Parts: sequence; structure tokens; C-alpha cells
Amino acid sequence: MRKNDRRHDEIRDVKITRNYLKHPQGSVLIEMGDTKVICTATLEERVPPFLKNSGKGWLTAEYAMLPMATQERNKREAAQGRIGGRTHEIQRLIGRSLRAVTDLESFGENTVYIDCDVIQADGGTRTASITGSFVALADLFRKMKEEGRCGSMPLLDYVSAVSVGIINDTLMLDLEYVEDSQADVDMNVVMTGMGKFIEVQGTAEKVPFSRDRLTEMIELAGRGIQALTEIQKQTLGGQF
Amino acid sequence: MRKNDRRHDEIRDVKITRNYLKHPQGSVLIEMGDTKVICTATLEERVPPFLKNSGKGWLTAEYAMLPMATQERNKREAAQGRIGGRTHEIQRLIGRSLRAVTDLESFGENTVYIDCDVIQADGGTRTASITGSFVALADLFRKMKEEGRCGSMPLLDYVSAVSVGIINDTLMLDLEYVEDSQADVDMNVVMTGMGKFIEVQGTAEKVPFSRDRLTEMIELAGRGIQALTEIQKQTLGGQF
Amino acid sequence: MRKNDRRHDEIRDVKITRNYLKHPQGSVLIEMGDTKVICTATLEERVPPFLKNSGKGWLTAEYAMLPMATQERNKREAAQGRIGGRTHEIQRLIGRSLRAVTDLESFGENTVYIDCDVIQADGGTRTASITGSFVALADLFRKMKEEGRCGSMPLLDYVSAVSVGIINDTLMLDLEYVEDSQADVDMNVVMTGMGKFIEVQGTAEKVPFSRDRLTEMIELAGRGIQALTEIQKQTLGGQF
Amino acid sequence: MRKNDRRHDEIRDVKITRNYLKHPQGSVLIEMGDTKVICTATLEERVPPFLKNSGKGWLTAEYAMLPMATQERNKREAAQGRIGGRTHEIQRLIGRSLRAVTDLESFGENTVYIDCDVIQADGGTRTASITGSFVALADLFRKMKEEGRCGSMPLLDYVSAVSVGIINDTLMLDLEYVEDSQADVDMNVVMTGMGKFIEVQGTAEKVPFSRDRLTEMIELAGRGIQALTEIQKQTLGGQF
Amino acid sequence: MRKNDRRHDEIRDVKITRNYLKHPQGSVLIEMGDTKVICTATLEERVPPFLKNSGKGWLTAEYAMLPMATQERNKREAAQGRIGGRTHEIQRLIGRSLRAVTDLESFGENTVYIDCDVIQADGGTRTASITGSFVALADLFRKMKEEGRCGSMPLLDYVSAVSVGIINDTLMLDLEYVEDSQADVDMNVVMTGMGKFIEVQGTAEKVPFSRDRLTEMIELAGRGIQALTEIQKQTLGGQF
Amino acid sequence: MRKNDRRHDEIRDVKITRNYLKHPQGSVLIEMGDTKVICTATLEERVPPFLKNSGKGWLTAEYAMLPMATQERNKREAAQGRIGGRTHEIQRLIGRSLRAVTDLESFGENTVYIDCDVIQADGGTRTASITGSFVALADLFRKMKEEGRCGSMPLLDYVSAVSVGIINDTLMLDLEYVEDSQADVDMNVVMTGMGKFIEVQGTAEKVPFSRDRLTEMIELAGRGIQALTEIQKQTLGGQF
Repeated sequence: MRKNDRRHDEIRDVKITRNYLKHPQGSVLIEMGDTKVICTATLEERVPPFLKNSGKGWLTAEYAMLPMATQERNKREAAQGRIGGRTHEIQRLIGRSLRAVTDLESFGENTVYIDCDVIQADGGTRTASITGSFVALADLFRKMKEEGRCGSMPLLDYVSAVSVGIINDTLMLDLEYVEDSQADVDMNVVMTGMGKFIEVQGTAEKVPFSRDRLTEMIELAGRGIQALTEIQKQTLGGQF
Repeated sequence: MRKNDRRHDEIRDVKITRNYLKHPQGSVLIEMGDTKVICTATLEERVPPFLKNSGKGWLTAEYAMLPMATQERNKREAAQGRIGGRTHEIQRLIGRSLRAVTDLESFGENTVYIDCDVIQADGGTRTASITGSFVALADLFRKMKEEGRCGSMPLLDYVSAVSVGIINDTLMLDLEYVEDSQADVDMNVVMTGMGKFIEVQGTAEKVPFSRDRLTEMIELAGRGIQALTEIQKQTLGGQF
Repeated sequence: MRKNDRRHDEIRDVKITRNYLKHPQGSVLIEMGDTKVICTATLEERVPPFLKNSGKGWLTAEYAMLPMATQERNKREAAQGRIGGRTHEIQRLIGRSLRAVTDLESFGENTVYIDCDVIQADGGTRTASITGSFVALADLFRKMKEEGRCGSMPLLDYVSAVSVGIINDTLMLDLEYVEDSQADVDMNVVMTGMGKFIEVQGTAEKVPFSRDRLTEMIELAGRGIQALTEIQKQTLGGQF
Repeated sequence: MRKNDRRHDEIRDVKITRNYLKHPQGSVLIEMGDTKVICTATLEERVPPFLKNSGKGWLTAEYAMLPMATQERNKREAAQGRIGGRTHEIQRLIGRSLRAVTDLESFGENTVYIDCDVIQADGGTRTASITGSFVALADLFRKMKEEGRCGSMPLLDYVSAVSVGIINDTLMLDLEYVEDSQADVDMNVVMTGMGKFIEVQGTAEKVPFSRDRLTEMIELAGRGIQALTEIQKQTLGGQF
Repeated sequence: MRKNDRRHDEIRDVKITRNYLKHPQGSVLIEMGDTKVICTATLEERVPPFLKNSGKGWLTAEYAMLPMATQERNKREAAQGRIGGRTHEIQRLIGRSLRAVTDLESFGENTVYIDCDVIQADGGTRTASITGSFVALADLFRKMKEEGRCGSMPLLDYVSAVSVGIINDTLMLDLEYVEDSQADVDMNVVMTGMGKFIEVQGTAEKVPFSRDRLTEMIELAGRGIQALTEIQKQTLGGQF
Repeated sequence: MRKNDRRHDEIRDVKITRNYLKHPQGSVLIEMGDTKVICTATLEERVPPFLKNSGKGWLTAEYAMLPMATQERNKREAAQGRIGGRTHEIQRLIGRSLRAVTDLESFGENTVYIDCDVIQADGGTRTASITGSFVALADLFRKMKEEGRCGSMPLLDYVSAVSVGIINDTLMLDLEYVEDSQADVDMNVVMTGMGKFIEVQGTAEKVPFSRDRLTEMIELAGRGIQALTEIQKQTLGGQF
């Protein structure tokens, strides 16, 4: 049995607090169990060079952890003078995931910055970042729409993310840290509210896995995504 | 009149939440008005090279801001590959201030890391960092004492910090951001609970100031420190 | 029809030249169509700190492109003073993929360095890097075995990688650059010779994809892997 | 008694050599005892981005030490690839101090660069840098005035700096290195020729200090500043 | 006797393969014995700031080694975050050498990038880089001329480079690695096809050398250059 | 005619001030015309990794310019976060030149640091650095010998350096800045007191040069070296 009597196919308790910060147009604190991430969405009135004069906008994401978010203090990347490989990998994933449900042509030559800062880490920080950032992004776009800066909501669908793992030959949904460190296979799935895939990343940490296992993991992830989409809808008060 | 009917010689509402994070031995969220800082204290079992085989411990501090802590998004120092001058200045100040009330010879060859991460900035982030970190440090040392890792509390006194400014020839205590940006003179004072000085930093931003003004600012700061020490005592539940 | 009358479910012409360089213990030039990568495997007699005194070895990979490997000259990462996110992502993938078929406990406290340097890029440089590096790695381990530095071959299985994409609703195997830049979905699959999965990474570049499409892409990738494993076997002259 | 029969309230011998270098518009060698700093002032015809089209000028300072200025060779910051916290702190202080007596609106959209390079260090390098740079700055502005590039001298007052310390409960003015390393309290004071304060930075290195001690230190610093202002006046040959 | 019965005054076997890569306008693989370098020449439509609006073009060179080009794996400069002194020295030499035979005023405000990537190193990588890059440059300029982007060939002469060394008091031409590491004196000479000097760099690695020895080395280098010029002419099919 | 009635084959006025700084064991200010360089020599009790347990010592050099040493302010390399190619080239040359006359086996596993800091630049900073550093090095070794840290002087010969150029077809010795910027050919020669060559670096800046010109330049450099050796001898008070 998992902590707090959680079933194998159950996600952790999720709490999303909107308008968590004063300054950014969209900001949430997402808590998935003990994992806590501040996600913000802000607009800057410029685009990267490759989009100059294209009429299109852009969305990019940055991700970081507080030094004491983890059990062992992790060194600040600023102090080391370089961003590590894991951080690069995660922030590129967050950016791709949110761009996939954003109509980049509908809000002018502006760039949305998504910032995900992990306050406390207990597994699943990248998936919580995607799920939480979507809500912050929806809040930013709502404000832009109210201010007449975009005609309709530039969102095509909901998006959320969840992990699945295989531990001792058992499939488990939404791994926390102690589970993650024992898993033979670790998969992160990003899906839309309509049940379409945006990203599938499965990695055999210890033992290669079969086609059947792959199919089961994808199925289980789908159930987690449904639950998360429902929570996003409730948090946002119905359709965005 | 200041925001929320605050008087010129009054500090903002202060709230210190202990045990804010799961992993570090000491952690608080300090809120001074809209300024919010997470302060943590953790121990690592090693000292910098200059203290090897000295039998003494060390304490060092790091400080950072979330990109969206400020009104305009500030760039991550990790992305820029270097820590800026302002950050260096602040984290050195925090380290010196806490070392001044810490008995570095009483907890072995270990290093205390103080991490101050500004979640939301509205003026006075460096002074809030010092005031909050003291509480996190006391919690760390209490745990060490309970675990028998140090004989007595390695703390010599309380320490807290507050700012004073001159705006339109009026002295004001504990400036928030809009006040700070108008101030002719800006002073940060770090004092012990016993009313002794650890650090005095006064800067004429626009107009040089007289000896009398200096004396008045120091006096006013002392009143702010008394109020902060009282809050620290209540938060910690009496004598550390 | 694709270039050179290639069918949708066909990989490009593959040529693997062993012993391509004089100095490293294992080195190949792999050519997949116009994509050319030099892959080398070398041993250093030390392990990263986390494995000191563990008795275990390690394998790590680095990846780079010559500036003129691509159509537009890409800037050297050395000149920019930092390794980009894409490079980090790729070299971590190569390392994980090869570690998954390597018995890290069988060759002492040594580190295998895999270096993949793209001489010419025409799509699929990360998958070619994995497929080619496996052969270089097998050659390194054969020499170690001959020299009595490991009892048996430290390889558990073959490993190779291939891409699959969806272009105009058609599935295509092993995309070259012009195809890759038009694809709606891009998937990289790393599998063993026995047909087990090591890594599945599918990304909706433009349009989210359905569960059926995911299943078809995985199936098609499997066929590519079979062909690549066969070529690896022939190149290595039978069982490793 | 101090070295060379110096009294507790006496500054070291000061020598300021004007026009020390050939190229810069203003350049001095300042010697305070064995501390020797080359200070230069030069003009560049551009301003930082935040002053573009403001009609205002700017002044900024840089500070460095030769590797062999100190007893132990200190590593070049260029070789380490980053400027340390102490350097940042000092060059920001020098810049603020000189800006406080400069009329930034009177010499167009130009930037004054102050460079302070410590040739030999024996305590008080930051205060000597400020005192010497003022003379270099006055020489630069005189040349600009002669060339008709500014109507009147853009200087509002003299500025100089001095340190005060407490050693074994005795106040001392203008500490040299061996004194500085024993001091319980270390204070740097920057004042104008008219006796107004620009910057007060007092730090308890070992023991917190009382309000009375603070008052005495400030008083003693004032006497040092008077002596330094007098020397600046003589060096510059009367009123600037 | 030297390896492969080479005489003391003989260069190694040279092979220059033109059009080695698909994308760059000029690209060769030069092999001098076991030293192998890919040299490319490409044009970018911009010049460095100091040539803006001058009507002149520029030529610059970059040089790097694959990690496994040498016997011991050399660390990637990208991973170290900085370009080493040896690399700087070599790429500046390559740039100067080619600029000396290029008419920079004849091809507009464009920059030629020369990239030299050492695939395998066995001594003389800098001289091989210069000799090979000249052929790549000639090919680039031929294409530009055919496309009407420059009136005449912007080349004033051939250029090639060779090393000479003194080993056990014997002069040797075109050192390979094992010879180079034993040499008392090491000289690199860059000359034009007409026999004029562009660069002479002689270094006493162990024992200072006399004027007579200097004269003999220069003479011997001249013979090597003649042979290399002849090979360049044949490779390019007669006059450029 | 040259400035100050200097003849074409004459070096500038040279002045070498010994014991220029208080802390380093050897330190000089060398002035060649308006070029002024502080050269220091200091010992550290460790060697680079490749010499550990070899019983041999090492000598290394660093070179830098003050920002205002040149007519236009040059940016600090520390502020840019990297050492430029020209600096690397020069400091490697200084190191090689001094190592060539140093008996590295005679002073134990210690490293000599040579620091050359250009205070004022008017051409020939690298040659002045070598000539001046030799004197600082001799002073360091004398002190070591007096302290019994080495049996005999670890110096094999004198070493100095000078430049020669061709301007309008006229050879000139020891170029100052305005001459250097007009030169068609620029040569730096490093020689011993006995007249042997340590380094010859000749570069055609604009026009390739003939063998005859090369011979003449080398001859002229030899005369400059004789004069410099004489000055070194007088400065050091006879044989070292």
C-alpha cells in the first residue's frame, strides 16, 4: 500500500491556488502531495529574433529549484555559472507542452514567459509544473482578453501531465520521490483535455520493458490526466 | 499618510511561519507587508579550506529572487551565467550579520547554509531576509542541541534588521518599494536584541545628509529593531 | 515518394566503418543517408565521485556538431562558453541508452566515454549516434576482454535507435532533415535487439496525436530497429 | 603606539601624483602609507540603456588589484572567469560616492569611467580609491570645461573617504592592514568637503558595538575627512 | 631513419579531398600522414563592427580537436566553458595566414569563416589546417566568382605551412607527433607560393639555437612549402 | 627621423626600477619609452598536476593591461568573464621565454609566478615584459639562494626580447605604438645574453617578406638584444 492509503492508480491530493503572487498576470501555487511549485505567466512585448516581423507570438519556459527544495541541499545554478542538463531538459519540455495548446498567432508579437520554481520537491516536479502553468497561462490570457489585447482565448485545449512507473512489476500512477527512486521504468505523459498526446517520454531506468507494459502505462497515464483536467476545470471555474 | 494608515515610525505587519518546508532543519516564510521571503538553515558536514582542522564551524548565506518577485520580470542569474553585484552585496551582508551572533566554535567543523529566496518583493528584502533567517537558524540549532550535536545553543543574541529612509525631509521606518524609490537617503541597520549594532549602512541616494539626520535615523532604526526582536521572541516561544 | 525511391517504412542506407580512428579503443563512422557521425568509445581509469569505492563502473556520453555540419553554420558551443539545451538533452539520452545494455558491475571502477561528433547532419543525428556508438562500445569491450580486463563481454543486448514521424497524416520511418522539419509528430525510439524498449520519446510538434497513432508509430519503429540490429550484427561479424 | 609614531587620530602620509598616466584625461597615483592605487577618469560618448535620450550622463567605477598587491598572491579575476563579491561591493561603493557629488545633468549623454587599480595594498584600498578618484575626476572635468564640453564644473562638492576601527577598545583612524585584521569593528565613512555624509558603513567584525561607540567613530572619521579634503584642495591648487 | 623510410627533408604523404562535406561552399579533408583535418570555408553576409560601412570584407578562423583525435582523450572546450590558450593561438595564426593572401576589398562586406576540425592528430595540425584551408577557400571563391559575387578571384597567391624541428642535432621537415615531442627546437613557417614569408615562428623547447641553425631551418622549410604548393596546384586543377 | 631623434637601429630609453613593490620577492618597473610594465616574480610551494612527485619545479606567466593603459579604454577581461586570445598568446610567450633560461630541476617542487601588468602601453609590451621579468626572476632566485632554498642560481643565461619592423621598406628596431600600427612586417625576437635564439615570431601584417628581409631583421634584433642584456647586467650589478 502507498502512503496515505493511496491506490496504485490514484493521483496524489492536488491543490491549485490561483493569484498566488502580486506582480505577474497569472500565478499559481500547485501542490501535488508534498511537491510544491510556483508557476507564473507573464507577457513581454517582444519576440525572439526568428519571429521578428512574423506577426506571431512565442511562449518559453524556465524552471528552477530552491536549494532546499530537496532532501540534500542542491547547489544554485547561478552560483555554478551554468544551467545543468536536467534543468534544460525540463524547461524545454514545459515550453513545448504549453505551446502545443496555444494559438501563437492570436496575441501579436509578444512572448509569454512561464516560470516554474519548485519550492519543495517530492517527485513529479516537471509534471506538476506543466499542470500548474496551464492554469497560470489561462489566467494571463483571460486578463489579456479582458483588456482587449486578444480577440478570443488563445488556448486550443487543456493540458496536464502525469508520471507512471513500474515498481517491482507493479504499475503506479503519479510517483512520489521514494517511489521514483525505486522504479524500473519511469514515464512522463503530457496530454490534452481531449485525450490527445502531446509528449510521451518513457525511460527504462534499470530493465527494458515490453510492448504490453508500454500499452498499460499509457492507459494508466490517461486516467491520471482525466483527473487532472477535471481539477483544472474546477479551479478555473468552468470552461476557459 | 502611508499605506494602511501606517505611521512614519511604524514597521509593516510581520508574519513569520516556522517549519515552512519539509526538508531543511530550519525554515520560515517571513512576510513583511507584501515582501515575502523563504529563509532556510541547513547544516553540511564540512568547512571551507581556510578552516580545515581548526575545530571551528562556519556560516554562509545565499540570496536570490524569483523572476516574478518584482513588478518587471528580472532575469534569472543562472541563465545569465553570473551573480550580479547587488546579489553579492546582499548575501555577504546576511552572512556577516548572522555570524556576528553565532558562536562558531561551538558546533564543530560544520557549515550552516542560510538560503534566502524572495518570493515576492516590495522593499526591504535584505532586512526581512536577516530577520527571518535568524528564526530559521534558531530552529536548526535547537534541533542540533536536541540531537546532542552541540552542548549549548550556539547563539549569543537575537539579530534583526530594518531600513530607515528620508523622504521629502521626513524620516520613515521600514520602507516599502514605492517609498524606497523616492528616498533621498536609505539606511539599513542590523542590531542585536540587546540593542548593539552589527551593521550600519547609510547611503545618500540623492542628497548628502548631516550628522543630526544620521543620529535621528539610527534612533528610529533602534525602535524598529525592538519591535522585530519582540516578534522573533514570540515566534520562537520565549528565550531561544 | 521519398528521395531515392525510399518507401515510408524503410530506413536509409546505413554504412558503419569500424576502426575509423587510430587512437580510441572503439571508433566508427556511421552514415545514415547523408547524416555522418564519428562515434568513439574509450576507457578512463576513474569513476565519478558517487561511485568511488563502489566496485562499479560508469558510462557517459558527449555529443557535438561541427559548425559546418548543418546548412547554416552553427556557432561552436566552446566559443559561446556554454553547452546548449539541445546538446544536453541528446547526450543524456545517448548515455542512458547505452547504460541500459551495459553491465556496469563487470569492468571495475572505470568510466567509458562515448563521444559522438556529427560531421554532417541530415536528420536523425541522435539516433545514428546511439546505433553507431553501440558498435564502438562493443569493439572497446572486445579489446578489454582480449586484454583480460573483464571476464565476459559487459553487454546485455544490442541497442539501436530510430525516428518515426507523421507527415500529412502519413507515418514515415527514419526521417531525413527536410521530412523532419515538416513533421506534425516526431518520435525517437530506442530498443534492444530482443525488441524491448529503453526509451520512447514522442512529441507533437504541431498537432496532438491519438492513442491509435501512438500504437502505429511504435510498431513502425520496431521494424526499423530490427533492420538496424541486423546491420549491427553483420558489422560486428556475428554475436558480440 | 602605531607604526611611524602615528597617533590614534591621525591619517597616514598621503601623496597624490596628478597626470600619472599618458592616455586618460584624468589620472592620479594616490599613496596612503604603503597603499598605492592608480585612479583614472575617462569619458565615453554613450550612456547605459536606461539613460538613452534622457539628456543625462552617467558615472561608473571599476576596481581591481594586481595579483602581487597583497602579501599572498591573489588570483586574477579574469583567470577565474568571474568578479568576486568583494570587488563588486567596492566598485559599487566608489561609483555611488562619486555620483553623489557629480551633476550628472551637466555634461551631456556621456559616461565617466573611473578605474581604480591597486598596485600595492596595505589596508584602506577602497577609501584611497575614492579619495584619489575624486582628483582624477576633477582633472577630467577641468579638461572638458576648457574644451567647452560642459559649461561649468559638474562637481557639487569634494568627496573623500576614510576608515575608523576599534582595536582593543581603542578607536583608530585610517587603519593599515595589520590593524584592520585585528579590529573588532571596522567602519568606512564617505563625506563631502562640507562635512555631509554620503555613505556610512560600519561592521562589527567580532563584537557588536554600542550607540556611544558609533557616535565616537563618526566623529573621528569626520576629522580624517577634513585632513583629506585639505590635501585634495592643495593637490588641485585651490578651488576646483 | 624515419617511419615509412621518410628522409629528413621529406614531407609526409599528403592527400586533399575536395568537396568533403555537403553543406559548406568550400570543404576539404586534408591528410598529412595520420593527421586528418576537415577544413571548411563559408560566407556570412556581415562583417565585424570595426568594418561596418568600410566596403571591406573579413576572414576569420576557428580551430578545434575532437576529444579522441589525440592518444589521451582531451576534454571538450565547450564542456569546460572556455577556449584554451593553445586553441586561441592556433586559430589566430590560421586567420592571419589566409588573410595575408586574400584581397579583403574585393568581395564586399562579407565574412569568410574558416573552420578547421582535427579528426585525428599526429603532429602538425596547425600547418595542415593552413594548407587545407587554402584549398577550401579557393573553392569558396570560385563559387562566388561563378555566381558573379566577386569580379576576379580574391586570392593574391597560394599559401601553405610546414614545420621544421631539430632532433638530436638533426634537422627534420614536417614532424609527426613522436618526433615533435623529442624536438629541441620547433619551427612553423607559413609561406606563399611565390616563396615569400607570411609567418615564421621558431621556439627553443629545450636548448636555445644559433643563427646558423635558424638559417638552415628556414631553408628546409622553403623546400617543404614548394612541395605543398605543388600539391595544392594539382588538387585545384591548375591556376586558381 | 623617429621621435626624440632616435635612429632606426636604436632602442628606446630603458629604465628598470628594482624592488618596486613591497610584497613580492622580485618586482621591477620597466620603462621602455612610454611603455611601462610592472613585472613580479613569486614562489608558490606547489606544482601543476603533471609535475607532482617529479622533483621538478615550474614557471608560469600571466599578463594583463590596465583598462587605461591604452589610448582607447580597453575592457577588463575579468568583466568580460574570459581571457582574450591576444592575452593568452602573450602570456604563453613570456612563460616559454623565461623557462628556456631557467633550470627547472634546481629549486624543488615549486612554481614561479611571473606577473606582467602593463600600466601604460606604447608598443612593445610583450618584449618589455620579458626583459623586465628576467630581472624580477633573478632577484627572486637571489633571495632563494640567500635563504638556502636552492644551491646555485637556477639561471642558465640572460634573456631579453625586442621587436623589429619594416615601415615603408625601412627596418626599424623597437617599435613604439604609432610605428607598430604602420608596419608592414612585425617581428618579435627573444634571445639569450650569449646570442642564442629562444623565440622568433615574424608576421607579415600587410605584405609577405623575402628571405633577405628576414635575415636583416634578425640581424637588427640581435643588436637590440645586446643593448638590453647590457642594461640588465648593470641593473643587476654584474653577473647574477
